[in-house]
Amino acid sequence: MDDVKTLISLDEETTDDDEPVAPKVAVKSSPPPTAVVDILNDDIPTPSTGVGVGNNNSGTLMPDKDDDDLPALLDHTPSYSGNSALNGNLPPNDRDNAESEPIFRVRSRTAVASTPNYESLDYEVCENKLFQDEQKKRLTERFSLRKDIIRWIIFIQIGIITALIACSIDIIIEELSELKYMFLMTSVEKNVPQTDFTGGDLVVPFLYWILLSVVPVAFGAAMVTYIEPITAGSGIPQVKSYLNGVKIPRIVRIKTLAVKAIGVITSVVGGLAGGKEGPMIHAGAVVAAGISQGKSTTFVKDFHVFKAFRDDHEKRDFVLGGGAAGVSAAFGAPIGGMLFSLEEAASFWNQNLIWRTLVASIISVFTLNLVLSTYHGLNDFTFTGLFNLGKFDQPLKFDYFELPIFMLLGITGGLLGAAWNSLNTKINGFRKRYIPWKIGKVCEAVVVAMFGVTLACTMIYFINDCRPLGNDPTIHPVQLFCEDNEYNAVAALWFQTPEATVRSLFHDPPGSHKILTLTMFTIVYYVLSCATFGLNVSLGVFIPTALVGAAWGRLFAMVTYYLFPETEFLHPGKYALIGAAANLGGVLRMTISLSVILMETTGVETSFFFPLIIALISAKWVGDYFNEGIYDTQIEVNHVPILPWEPLPQYKGLTAREILSSPVVCIKLRDSAHYIYNVLKKCDHNGFPVVDDVQGVHRSQGRVCGIVLRSQLIVILLKSLYVENSRFWLPDTSIQTFRDVYPRYPSIESVRKLDDKINYTVDLAMFMNPSPVRVNAHDSVPRIFQVFRALGLRHMLVINNENRIAGIITRRDFIYK
Amino acid sequence: MDDVKTLISLDEETTDDDEPVAPKVAVKSSPPPTAVVDILNDDIPTPSTGVGVGNNNSGTLMPDKDDDDLPALLDHTPSYSGNSALNGNLPPNDRDNAESEPIFRVRSRTAVASTPNYESLDYEVCENKLFQDEQKKRLTERFSLRKDIIRWIIFIQIGIITALIACSIDIIIEELSELKYMFLMTSVEKNVPQTDFTGGDLVVPFLYWILLSVVPVAFGAAMVTYIEPITAGSGIPQVKSYLNGVKIPRIVRIKTLAVKAIGVITSVVGGLAGGKEGPMIHAGAVVAAGISQGKSTTFVKDFHVFKAFRDDHEKRDFVLGGGAAGVSAAFGAPIGGMLFSLEEAASFWNQNLIWRTLVASIISVFTLNLVLSTYHGLNDFTFTGLFNLGKFDQPLKFDYFELPIFMLLGITGGLLGAAWNSLNTKINGFRKRYIPWKIGKVCEAVVVAMFGVTLACTMIYFINDCRPLGNDPTIHPVQLFCEDNEYNAVAALWFQTPEATVRSLFHDPPGSHKILTLTMFTIVYYVLSCATFGLNVSLGVFIPTALVGAAWGRLFAMVTYYLFPETEFLHPGKYALIGAAANLGGVLRMTISLSVILMETTGVETSFFFPLIIALISAKWVGDYFNEGIYDTQIEVNHVPILPWEPLPQYKGLTAREILSSPVVCIKLRDSAHYIYNVLKKCDHNGFPVVDDVQGVHRSQGRVCGIVLRSQLIVILLKSLYVENSRFWLPDTSIQTFRDVYPRYPSIESVRKLDDKINYTVDLAMFMNPSPVRVNAHDSVPRIFQVFRALGLRHMLVINNENRIAGIITRRDFIYK
Repeated sequence: MDDVKTLISLDEETTDDDEPVAPKVAVKSSPPPTAVVDILNDDIPTPSTGVGVGNNNSGTLMPDKDDDDLPALLDHTPSYSGNSALNGNLPPNDRDNAESEPIFRVRSRTAVASTPNYESLDYEVCENKLFQDEQKKRLTERFSLRKDIIRWIIFIQIGIITALIACSIDIIIEELSELKYMFLMTSVEKNVPQTDFTGGDLVVPFLYWILLSVVPVAFGAAMVTYIEPITAGSGIPQVKSYLNGVKIPRIVRIKTLAVKAIGVITSVVGGLAGGKEGPMIHAGAVVAAGISQGKSTTFVKDFHVFKAFRDDHEKRDFVLGGGAAGVSAAFGAPIGGMLFSLEEAASFWNQNLIWRTLVASIISVFTLNLVLSTYHGLNDFTFTGLFNLGKFDQPLKFDYFELPIFMLLGITGGLLGAAWNSLNTKINGFRKRYIPWKIGKVCEAVVVAMFGVTLACTMIYFINDCRPLGNDPTIHPVQLFCEDNEYNAVAALWFQTPEATVRSLFHDPPGSHKILTLTMFTIVYYVLSCATFGLNVSLGVFIPTALVGAAWGRLFAMVTYYLFPETEFLHPGKYALIGAAANLGGVLRMTISLSVILMETTGVETSFFFPLIIALISAKWVGDYFNEGIYDTQIEVNHVPILPWEPLPQYKGLTAREILSSPVVCIKLRDSAHYIYNVLKKCDHNGFPVVDDVQGVHRSQGRVCGIVLRSQLIVILLKSLYVENSRFWLPDTSIQTFRDVYPRYPSIESVRKLDDKINYTVDLAMFMNPSPVRVNAHDSVPRIFQVFRALGLRHMLVINNENRIAGIITRRDFIYK
Repeated sequence: MDDVKTLISLDEETTDDDEPVAPKVAVKSSPPPTAVVDILNDDIPTPSTGVGVGNNNSGTLMPDKDDDDLPALLDHTPSYSGNSALNGNLPPNDRDNAESEPIFRVRSRTAVASTPNYESLDYEVCENKLFQDEQKKRLTERFSLRKDIIRWIIFIQIGIITALIACSIDIIIEELSELKYMFLMTSVEKNVPQTDFTGGDLVVPFLYWILLSVVPVAFGAAMVTYIEPITAGSGIPQVKSYLNGVKIPRIVRIKTLAVKAIGVITSVVGGLAGGKEGPMIHAGAVVAAGISQGKSTTFVKDFHVFKAFRDDHEKRDFVLGGGAAGVSAAFGAPIGGMLFSLEEAASFWNQNLIWRTLVASIISVFTLNLVLSTYHGLNDFTFTGLFNLGKFDQPLKFDYFELPIFMLLGITGGLLGAAWNSLNTKINGFRKRYIPWKIGKVCEAVVVAMFGVTLACTMIYFINDCRPLGNDPTIHPVQLFCEDNEYNAVAALWFQTPEATVRSLFHDPPGSHKILTLTMFTIVYYVLSCATFGLNVSLGVFIPTALVGAAWGRLFAMVTYYLFPETEFLHPGKYALIGAAANLGGVLRMTISLSVILMETTGVETSFFFPLIIALISAKWVGDYFNEGIYDTQIEVNHVPILPWEPLPQYKGLTAREILSSPVVCIKLRDSAHYIYNVLKKCDHNGFPVVDDVQGVHRSQGRVCGIVLRSQLIVILLKSLYVENSRFWLPDTSIQTFRDVYPRYPSIESVRKLDDKINYTVDLAMFMNPSPVRVNAHDSVPRIFQVFRALGLRHMLVINNENRIAGIITRRDFIYK
């Protein structure tokens, strides 16, 4: 399992991973443009880059019988040893082997090896003969209605269960934090004598604090590092990649969910600078994937329900709903949740899907409301904690002249956010290079936790910010070095979860903090959050980002008021909110959903939407000038082949001819089992064009009539679905035969050698997808990109004017420059 | 102009329009399914359905020089006289004419004639040589940035101007209504002596009322009927169709906007049962189309700006933003506006587009807020009238046991809504058949207005519903037959605009009405609104629908309270809101945006989202069981070829072969000008496959290498872009040459006869779109539908396995059963 790269690059094998990635597809010298569309003729120059793989290191492909992550392993098959031997000649014995056809003249498609080898999801529905048969059987109104109803039931379940998990995490964190900080405060009060203002003994509470931080953090980090490294970080980049169509191994497992839940609880309770929101979104995605499939690989349990939904297409739709439900549960923001899913994920827009997503979000918020209201002893649905950043009681007002100020704050947010992203990326690069050991990663988390506690203690010790009790906003004010009837404002900021601190900054009455306090706090938290995100713990980045923004936003209001005491418009909570929006915009760059989430979680009026948007837009535009949002940065750093919304500008003038990979390994419509076996054994491509009208042995010059997936071919070989014995299997074979093995297809190694069936043939007509998307070699890349993305493709065949194959284009061809 | 069919079918020529539409594409007897994909061979059986059109009635194509609606006329060219002569043989002279090739063997593509002939928009970008040249010239970062900035500026302008128009309509309606109802009240008080409770003389006020209703309504109806019939109704079905990709003639003209604005003002002031919301959405769309094009056909003015945005693709995106801005301005609901656009329109999801749409919506709401706040003399942005259904001051609460009640109300709403839709469709069918004359349509509107006034007067006269003054919710209470210190609750309901009545029903304190009053009011308004929608006036259906729902929702609460006086949960405003949601869900079926709009316009808490959604879902599902939403019904009744989200169930088992139209009129890559001229002259197709490798004269058996649009061919002929004289035009010709004539392409009639250029040839290589979307004949219809819709296509070429044309599929092929 160790050789699987995680998005956050936690694994120790990747010490040299940050070397510059070799450009994948060299733009081949294209023929000079002519006005007349030149017809691609058949004599594609045979490239001299054939790779001999007769002695393939197939040992690494041997399935580990105890490992339930077989396909995940397969996903990460190291590429051929011949990677650097691109100029090697084809050994003659290999030539004989493969029915006299060199099947490995593949040029560019195997040259991508230095990056982790993420596979794509099969979002495209394979409408083969079997699928059509099933459709015909189920063409009745009743079946389609039933499937629709079941789909609704699943979405409702997703909403409920996601909310329950979110509630549990919420309540546990709240209770444990309460215990922790109560204990610390008691300890402070015990050790600092109330009468001695010159400085008491803070060492004992400090040590307690360290202990109560280090233990949970170490536990959480160890869980994440040793049990499921994919759970590190917020999970949003992973979910985003998954929804974009990249197969991230083990991202939607129940084990992942369990580790993530424990990880986030321990980290937040441990006092790291992070929030629980991101992990909740990931949790929603796992719940969605789990429920919709009706089976669990972790528990090796198949409930034999929802079988019709077992394909990547349906699963991805459910995960979209799950992510939305997670956001909704995290923020109490159903519309924000739906928009988050849309903004970050859905490339294929469908009214029904969005509608179901919205319902899942609303159900999720309702369930959350129900449980939390009950938990807090309220019996109508009025638990305002659902606005988890605190509801503004008074409608926020603003004046015309404040709009430029908001814009200025937005620009500040953009600059700070871009700097934060850049700093964080540097820290993570450093981390990846110099802390490769697992134990080191755990230690690092512990060190950061201790560092945070120390800074906090130092601040509390040295800054003497005492405020009168009475209009105190904290539940448990600490007196510390203050007079009676006063509380320590610095301790109030630190002695709670980050989320509660955001609430304080939004809603504390004016004059709750010194300027110095807040300045120090902003700087410390900025650095701390930057060091924290990227640790091997489960934590989201939303809350610390909002916290930093709220701090400097409030600070701005305080400084301005200090300089111009006659000003009246400076509601500090309002500026804290704008600051939070600006900082979030600068770091995350998710403008649509962020604005709605902020609106929903703080209950501001529609009229205050405009200032929020001004701050967000300014922050996003300024930030975009320097770098990408933090999620996209993480995705890029880890070389996940995620498809952007628009083709990269470098691709603007190119045509398909210049990015395609060729020649392509093809299979004949009716081909020998032996050939197929050899092909599968010797290359790890996932899609093979099916050709017809083949002259001689040159399959790649046949006419395209379909595409067949690796997984399908393996099932065909495993189940011996040959022409010669078709009377045995034909009656029982249906699309379900293929669906049963989803999503962990066996590897080719699990197919026995075909000694006795060496002359058997396979007729692919009923198995292949007869409607692959084909484009012409002279089609422009922006255009085919649009098709590729809109249809969620995995393979796109490039044909010439005679419908003969000219190349193949996959997701990866659109990514690297 | 009269022969143009409007969506609401106002024109008098269509008296026989509601005859059953002949099934368009007979499902051809497909070959028996075989396991092997059968390769389409070249010998397509020549259909015996060639149509001779030598003596085409091209007289109808003669351009009317005074008419600025030339392309619109062309769009509605009646089909060939040979429609019913499908079995006629090809006259030999025609065969000679067209270079010995029968160009009119077209079978199914001309058989669709009995419906209005809507054309599609060219949402697909034609990436021809000229386009690529432009791209290359503008490949610089700077150009793309500049275009992006201009796009933003346009979206911001759209938001501002739409809001200004909405404000003007709003304020004018408010002021005029105020004047009207004040005058009527004075008249009532003058004519009904305060001391005589037995019945005063209501005749004079009644006559005044009639007069003040009839005059504006007659004026508005006359404007709509005689000047711009497309402005009738709410405009939402038209905008929806446009965004779906159907070219609705004259839908986005400035003249249309002017008539619509005056029409809606007169109708609402006249007291018809309608709202101003739908027309505002239409207004937003017009503004967007107008601004983005930088020129106006109505004023024959070209500002020579925004030239890069002059194509259907860009224009449609702007119209999407305009629609959203319109919704936002109408309801003060920016998120609702964006979601409305998404739900009703966007088939191609794009993050940037949505983001711009949201910004336009927010700008629009902000502008509205600004203007209305200033108008009402407030100087911070606190004009609560922006919640145009009135803000609920107290958070609405609900108990668990109310959820089934909400569901029950939802079901009621679904039933009432379905009945309303069905009744309204019947009334409109009747109207279309029996009131074909223009003057009749105006009279009808007047009669309905009088009918409404009479009913209202009767109610006021006969129902004696007096309430004590003091907690009166109306601004100008009418005493009428009541005691001193009392006001007449019936008159209060009627003496205001429908919108204000919705507000009253939501927010009046409990006990403001008698049960009898509200029952009568509900029934009267239900019938009245049903009779009104479909009149030849500009009016939306949202407000009357919400009003009816609010009335019966409030009635439900009152009746329940009457039966069980001990119940406490029955806040009448809450039930009015749920009733309005249920009724809207039942009539409109737009669940996502409706729920958000209702939330935003009434300012309810997120926790009340759940009851709203329960009511909406129940209403939608129950309603969907019976019929479609009112907008879709209107679209269907008018045979607008709008693409649904999913393919029709009838298409589930079919393949492309069974719906395609063939043979197709093709043009050679280098063809004679004479042939092209003849083709354009004799058929009205809009897309012609460009073929190559033609053996002999049979163009339709060549290999497909592109597609060229009718409009492009006409420009080529008009500008004489021939191979033989290329040295004259080649240096100056660019994509701008073609863009200049957008959107009203000249007809073929404007091309002079090619006598001297009879032997000239056209090389289409640089003009045609070299990347048409091609599918195979055996591809399943659901699949190609997905491609067609996701890419917003107009033509889809069906090819065989050798890349020779097998047929063509257009929007219409997916519509009729």
